[in-house]
Amino acid sequence: MTRALPAPTAEIAAAVARALAEDAPWGDVTTEALVPATASVHAVLRAREPGVLAGLDVVAEAMTQSAALTGGAAVTTLGAHRDGDRFDAGDDLATVTGSAHAILRAERVALNLLQHLCGVATLTARFAGEVAHTGARVTDTRKTTPGLRGLERHAVRCGGGSNHRRTLSDAVLVKDNHLAMITSAGADVTAALLALRAAVPHTTAVEVEVDRLDQLPAVLAAGVDAVLLDNFTLADLRAGVAQVAGQALVEASGGVRLETVGAVAETGVDLVSVGALTQAAAAVDLGLDVAVGSGAGGDR
Amino acid sequence: MTRALPAPTAEIAAAVARALAEDAPWGDVTTEALVPATASVHAVLRAREPGVLAGLDVVAEAMTQSAALTGGAAVTTLGAHRDGDRFDAGDDLATVTGSAHAILRAERVALNLLQHLCGVATLTARFAGEVAHTGARVTDTRKTTPGLRGLERHAVRCGGGSNHRRTLSDAVLVKDNHLAMITSAGADVTAALLALRAAVPHTTAVEVEVDRLDQLPAVLAAGVDAVLLDNFTLADLRAGVAQVAGQALVEASGGVRLETVGAVAETGVDLVSVGALTQAAAAVDLGLDVAVGSGAGGDR
Amino acid sequence: MTRALPAPTAEIAAAVARALAEDAPWGDVTTEALVPATASVHAVLRAREPGVLAGLDVVAEAMTQSAALTGGAAVTTLGAHRDGDRFDAGDDLATVTGSAHAILRAERVALNLLQHLCGVATLTARFAGEVAHTGARVTDTRKTTPGLRGLERHAVRCGGGSNHRRTLSDAVLVKDNHLAMITSAGADVTAALLALRAAVPHTTAVEVEVDRLDQLPAVLAAGVDAVLLDNFTLADLRAGVAQVAGQALVEASGGVRLETVGAVAETGVDLVSVGALTQAAAAVDLGLDVAVGSGAGGDR
Amino acid sequence: MTRALPAPTAEIAAAVARALAEDAPWGDVTTEALVPATASVHAVLRAREPGVLAGLDVVAEAMTQSAALTGGAAVTTLGAHRDGDRFDAGDDLATVTGSAHAILRAERVALNLLQHLCGVATLTARFAGEVAHTGARVTDTRKTTPGLRGLERHAVRCGGGSNHRRTLSDAVLVKDNHLAMITSAGADVTAALLALRAAVPHTTAVEVEVDRLDQLPAVLAAGVDAVLLDNFTLADLRAGVAQVAGQALVEASGGVRLETVGAVAETGVDLVSVGALTQAAAAVDLGLDVAVGSGAGGDR
Amino acid sequence: MTRALPAPTAEIAAAVARALAEDAPWGDVTTEALVPATASVHAVLRAREPGVLAGLDVVAEAMTQSAALTGGAAVTTLGAHRDGDRFDAGDDLATVTGSAHAILRAERVALNLLQHLCGVATLTARFAGEVAHTGARVTDTRKTTPGLRGLERHAVRCGGGSNHRRTLSDAVLVKDNHLAMITSAGADVTAALLALRAAVPHTTAVEVEVDRLDQLPAVLAAGVDAVLLDNFTLADLRAGVAQVAGQALVEASGGVRLETVGAVAETGVDLVSVGALTQAAAAVDLGLDVAVGSGAGGDR
Amino acid sequence: MTRALPAPTAEIAAAVARALAEDAPWGDVTTEALVPATASVHAVLRAREPGVLAGLDVVAEAMTQSAALTGGAAVTTLGAHRDGDRFDAGDDLATVTGSAHAILRAERVALNLLQHLCGVATLTARFAGEVAHTGARVTDTRKTTPGLRGLERHAVRCGGGSNHRRTLSDAVLVKDNHLAMITSAGADVTAALLALRAAVPHTTAVEVEVDRLDQLPAVLAAGVDAVLLDNFTLADLRAGVAQVAGQALVEASGGVRLETVGAVAETGVDLVSVGALTQAAAAVDLGLDVAVGSGAGGDR
Repeated sequence: MTRALPAPTAEIAAAVARALAEDAPWGDVTTEALVPATASVHAVLRAREPGVLAGLDVVAEAMTQSAALTGGAAVTTLGAHRDGDRFDAGDDLATVTGSAHAILRAERVALNLLQHLCGVATLTARFAGEVAHTGARVTDTRKTTPGLRGLERHAVRCGGGSNHRRTLSDAVLVKDNHLAMITSAGADVTAALLALRAAVPHTTAVEVEVDRLDQLPAVLAAGVDAVLLDNFTLADLRAGVAQVAGQALVEASGGVRLETVGAVAETGVDLVSVGALTQAAAAVDLGLDVAVGSGAGGDR
Repeated sequence: MTRALPAPTAEIAAAVARALAEDAPWGDVTTEALVPATASVHAVLRAREPGVLAGLDVVAEAMTQSAALTGGAAVTTLGAHRDGDRFDAGDDLATVTGSAHAILRAERVALNLLQHLCGVATLTARFAGEVAHTGARVTDTRKTTPGLRGLERHAVRCGGGSNHRRTLSDAVLVKDNHLAMITSAGADVTAALLALRAAVPHTTAVEVEVDRLDQLPAVLAAGVDAVLLDNFTLADLRAGVAQVAGQALVEASGGVRLETVGAVAETGVDLVSVGALTQAAAAVDLGLDVAVGSGAGGDR
Repeated sequence: MTRALPAPTAEIAAAVARALAEDAPWGDVTTEALVPATASVHAVLRAREPGVLAGLDVVAEAMTQSAALTGGAAVTTLGAHRDGDRFDAGDDLATVTGSAHAILRAERVALNLLQHLCGVATLTARFAGEVAHTGARVTDTRKTTPGLRGLERHAVRCGGGSNHRRTLSDAVLVKDNHLAMITSAGADVTAALLALRAAVPHTTAVEVEVDRLDQLPAVLAAGVDAVLLDNFTLADLRAGVAQVAGQALVEASGGVRLETVGAVAETGVDLVSVGALTQAAAAVDLGLDVAVGSGAGGDR
Repeated sequence: MTRALPAPTAEIAAAVARALAEDAPWGDVTTEALVPATASVHAVLRAREPGVLAGLDVVAEAMTQSAALTGGAAVTTLGAHRDGDRFDAGDDLATVTGSAHAILRAERVALNLLQHLCGVATLTARFAGEVAHTGARVTDTRKTTPGLRGLERHAVRCGGGSNHRRTLSDAVLVKDNHLAMITSAGADVTAALLALRAAVPHTTAVEVEVDRLDQLPAVLAAGVDAVLLDNFTLADLRAGVAQVAGQALVEASGGVRLETVGAVAETGVDLVSVGALTQAAAAVDLGLDVAVGSGAGGDR
Repeated sequence: MTRALPAPTAEIAAAVARALAEDAPWGDVTTEALVPATASVHAVLRAREPGVLAGLDVVAEAMTQSAALTGGAAVTTLGAHRDGDRFDAGDDLATVTGSAHAILRAERVALNLLQHLCGVATLTARFAGEVAHTGARVTDTRKTTPGLRGLERHAVRCGGGSNHRRTLSDAVLVKDNHLAMITSAGADVTAALLALRAAVPHTTAVEVEVDRLDQLPAVLAAGVDAVLLDNFTLADLRAGVAQVAGQALVEASGGVRLETVGAVAETGVDLVSVGALTQAAAAVDLGLDVAVGSGAGGDR
Repeated sequence: MTRALPAPTAEIAAAVARALAEDAPWGDVTTEALVPATASVHAVLRAREPGVLAGLDVVAEAMTQSAALTGGAAVTTLGAHRDGDRFDAGDDLATVTGSAHAILRAERVALNLLQHLCGVATLTARFAGEVAHTGARVTDTRKTTPGLRGLERHAVRCGGGSNHRRTLSDAVLVKDNHLAMITSAGADVTAALLALRAAVPHTTAVEVEVDRLDQLPAVLAAGVDAVLLDNFTLADLRAGVAQVAGQALVEASGGVRLETVGAVAETGVDLVSVGALTQAAAAVDLGLDVAVGSGAGGDR
């Protein structure tokens, strides 16, 4: 499977470093007291239920960083799957060989990140599957876990979804509150949107959220890039798509569920954004099976 | 309701700061281009479904930090509920009044954190409810969201659960892999545990995970503080509790679900640890309803 | 004068903090040894040559931060000018009253930042003046001073210019090297651009740089948002504008100077990007005139 | 050519890291979407106008750091020139071979830093050339670009200039405001300077700025290391040099320009400090010419 | 000698980085101006008085980090001694060969850390020697040098001492002030301690400080893990040990000195905590003897 | 008593922040579980032995920062003594009133820093007292505790000592190793020192260490600012002072002890540097006596 974008190397490194510090601020007292520093183990990262892979690079990164923290070494070998691939229960995703101190200290951090990201990818894939017969894209939202936005967006892509704007800074999304303020200040919506367009970089896309069909003409008159039809009925979505008629992309949003996303997509919208992708994904069950290595029988 | 521990003020501040930077690295282009810097709004944080409250302090913290970032001001007034309380759909949890720039920039950050923490507390409360007729405590695990461990542990307490050890550094938990290494190296388990006890601070508790009942005698002989019976049947849990006979605390773990936690607790164990509390909690639906303030009609 | 966007409060705070630490890692040995900690002064920030104001907030920020570092206090009062305004030699831009330790330690930091930003704004205003009779916008580039991009972009806006994309992350700009790689790999340019469009968020604008007129059709066929005509002659620019015919925005770039920017703009392009705005702006001469306050005559 | 001091390795690494984060907070969306991760390129850093080289190490550092961020690799080979050397238009300064992702992401950061530092070195060399027939040194000031002081000071040395004190912390420079405070407090200047000398480390040099010749005797009586004659006429500079008569170093400052620096130096002063070195240097025109490598034709 | 716990690799790296930055914020001006960058030296780290080794890893870490900062290379070879070993005056602890710039810049940082840690270990060993004939452990306290707690705790272990709780966060120590608050609020001590036990993780040990023997029964009734007898006479310590009778560990504290620690330990307490270990240890005299290498005779 | 330099406000804030994080990474579990968040206390910081005060500002800073971390408030009132003053056993140095949570969390951090700094000041005062009848200054060295250099230098000043250079960056100190490298490379010492002088800023003082009297002429010929006579006999020190004859400052160093410092100073040297000031100072005994406040009797 071809992936849309490579894994976010620098963000993975930062998330792993933060997680390792959080999980062992002054070392792993159990392992340090029980296991010789020279002991080695062989560990297999194995799926315990099926899912879609996302964030596999966290394993090698966690092992490498942990090795630097403990003064050991750990080599990670990836299995046959790559980010974006489906895996089954029992599949080996990676193997790690090296210092017991390094591997045991990284285990929970690697699993916590990878299980969560696979959870997001797996849920996304289910949503994406429901709209595969339409031309619509399923997109994420800014309803992400604080600190993990970049990784979760990658997981959404791994699951076959698309990303919405990343932050408040990189694209304009005019919401109901903004429109209310424009109106309550007596301004003209079309004029306000044109002024906004002139004030932001020409590379900044402009999308506008509307709650009612009758808001569309003033918005479209400003030449926006996309309109977001929020909490519309299926009938109104169809009417909206017809009204926009290709002048802008059309996004649907508002409490979209697995049971409803297909029908929403069939209205002809270009995009369906789904907060649940990053707010309701349960971790996928993965485990690290450790076999004691030949170096463990030392004379410590 | 009396809470076990106060909210983690410093951790909330750090999480909010990181989230605000992540969500708006160079400002909110939409609001800055459309809304006068002097505009004010009045916003109500409202529950859209019932749940258990956890992390309410993030709201004021996000608003205050956002105000500092935007040069505005925003005053947060809490409603009747406090962390640990149950709320219903429609309840007002807080109101915020002040700079539109400050409030709109903080909105998603505050909601993302609060919805997630309420999700954890609400799920924990369901688990805790299932064991309320026993003497057992439901505890969390280290299976937390990277970067949010302290906040999630607080949410677990808000839901009526207890916390397990915080990190690899502050308590000993000897796991199956450790025992395997001890044994494979030809050492005696009891002796190894006694040596461990001598090597760590006297203030560090020692818990040992066992997979089979026949492992218990050697572990108990070392005078450990707690034993973890992992993936035991109910019958074996009862046998384990009898065998331990008060010499140590007994914890049960392994795939515990809402449907099974009650029966596990009824075996007489002291603690049931549940990874799902922090790995499978969906966000609780909360929203910020914004009313345009009197200051919005400026002549910008 | 209405400003396009408010000053970047958080970025100013960060730049000031970094600069204060850089300029006095362990204090101001001269002032600390010569001047009583209780001494106060009155200082006037005064223009020594005409220019366009940008970054005035750095003054109060530097004074406030310096006061915190020195344990003193300093109050900044702004003059009649605001960011975006023109000032003349001799104009008072701000006055600062308070602790001599605080003010003398902040002086150079405040001036270094403000003089540079006014330099950028002043040069931008000259370029913008040259194209005022056309419909074209003058924009900046990514050729900014490392560490100061956000502040320099603000200065460009203060000078009447527009901003281009902020970073490599927030908008697509396909350059000659990218096109060469597409072609050398045997791919079709239009197809590659359409695939790119599908891979990035729908909120990410797509601009493509072309070096020759004959590249335009394949690019326009992909429905891009803007084309960048790099190092074109005036005649070719006019031909390009005609060829694009409103299907995309047209940007001109490549060694544009004050003497040539007007003619470039007259070709009908929408945007003229100018690296010199941030690469060749000399600091505007400003100074802080200090009057010794009544508190200086202490009995230290 | 022998250089006075080696390049500031750690400061270069820090500046590059900050700039890369600033320029691509979440990656290079264009390259990631268009170019296979395995594509390689060959790039030549070439001068487009003559100048003096300063900061060449930023190229390899930017490429190496970018490679770590993107998971690629990039090898930098330097050309014949080293920091402090003059180069001509068309000279190849370095070549870089490796990952297209790594090299394209580092390109602008490397150029922005190197062009600026070469600009400072080139301007400094012009000033230094004007005083080469005298015994005077041209020095920089604290009027540097916030965040880049260490690099700009290195560039000044590359251009044949000397550095003044680095910060407010490492040397004493008593300015007019300090003297005014001493006097207004009724203190004796000589006594105050002697007390200052006793209060600071014996390794801290003491320089005093004077505005008028009649201030010199009291200053010299304190045995200072240097005097700064600020905004003196050429005649007064000559008189000042005579009056100091070798008891201290003599520095001239105040609006010194290329046209005037020679005459100032001929007055016999030891040092001429010039703010313009770091406040008015335009970037030198350099470019990175990229050739698509054999690895680019992948089947991605 | 078997060490209880491995050296804190990550904490050593952090302490060294902070110290190098503190000691040379912008390089070593002397060496950079006098010594060619290519010069190499051979240096021997030698004890000038006997002591106990702790923190030897700081040497290689400082050399490696300094090499990265200076662009050089330096190889550290350890001598025969390891952390926890006794050494004599004249013993060679390590040799370092490589870049003169790297080694001279790291010298003082390495020595400052190592001399201090050896000082702590050496003093601890003297205390531990005084109690070796008893069953008591000598432990440290939280009276550590700010910023160096982890390293000092390692040094205490190297000296044969034990560690007390690391922080306020990882174990409960109820002090006289806490008991006074409980009592003054009219609460029952036993009940309050039982409530505390229920509120903290089951892995958190609970120790209670008492000032008088008559406080013991209420404390012991709560089933605490340890009692701290603060400032007790030897007779009262013996009585306390008898009264506790194995129900909890017994710790003695309060102004314990080398002259008194043996008698305190002979009372039968399990632990004697000594603030002086980290508050009164003088640095052990170590030096780096540098021999100029063959590379120093360059033609610079 | 007049202090030479004010307390290092920013460095105190940074050290306190680091220490608070080190001492309570996730709060004070004891106090949080036992004491209501609304409880208040009154605490007196009291000397338990005589000493010289240094770093008193850490108390208020620790209390204020701790209050922010705990959500409480704490007001610090200073007693009659200020940094540099002598205090007696029993003197009250400060009182703190406010939140029990805030004060108890800051207690150990404030004491650890203040006790150490008073230790340095007290020891310095003893050394300074021994040389008071001479014209010599006692100075510190770079043998400081990593992370605390700025605070320890302040403590040295409080004790009546002087500071030596702060870092490797701000002043030149040519040591025996440097001279050996110059000589082994066949260079002339005087010429090398003159070249060094030309390479460093004119504000950078140059001091040279010599081991033998016969090295002095070549060093003095270069016009250095100071010479360091290392490990000289008293007779040789006197001879060295005579030989220098006022051409440079003369510093003595090398194993100087309280018993010998007076005789060293009487040889006529200007400075005596003493590593023991910061390497061998035991903490001064101070304590915080807490009285339970009226707010503690809450109904929690």
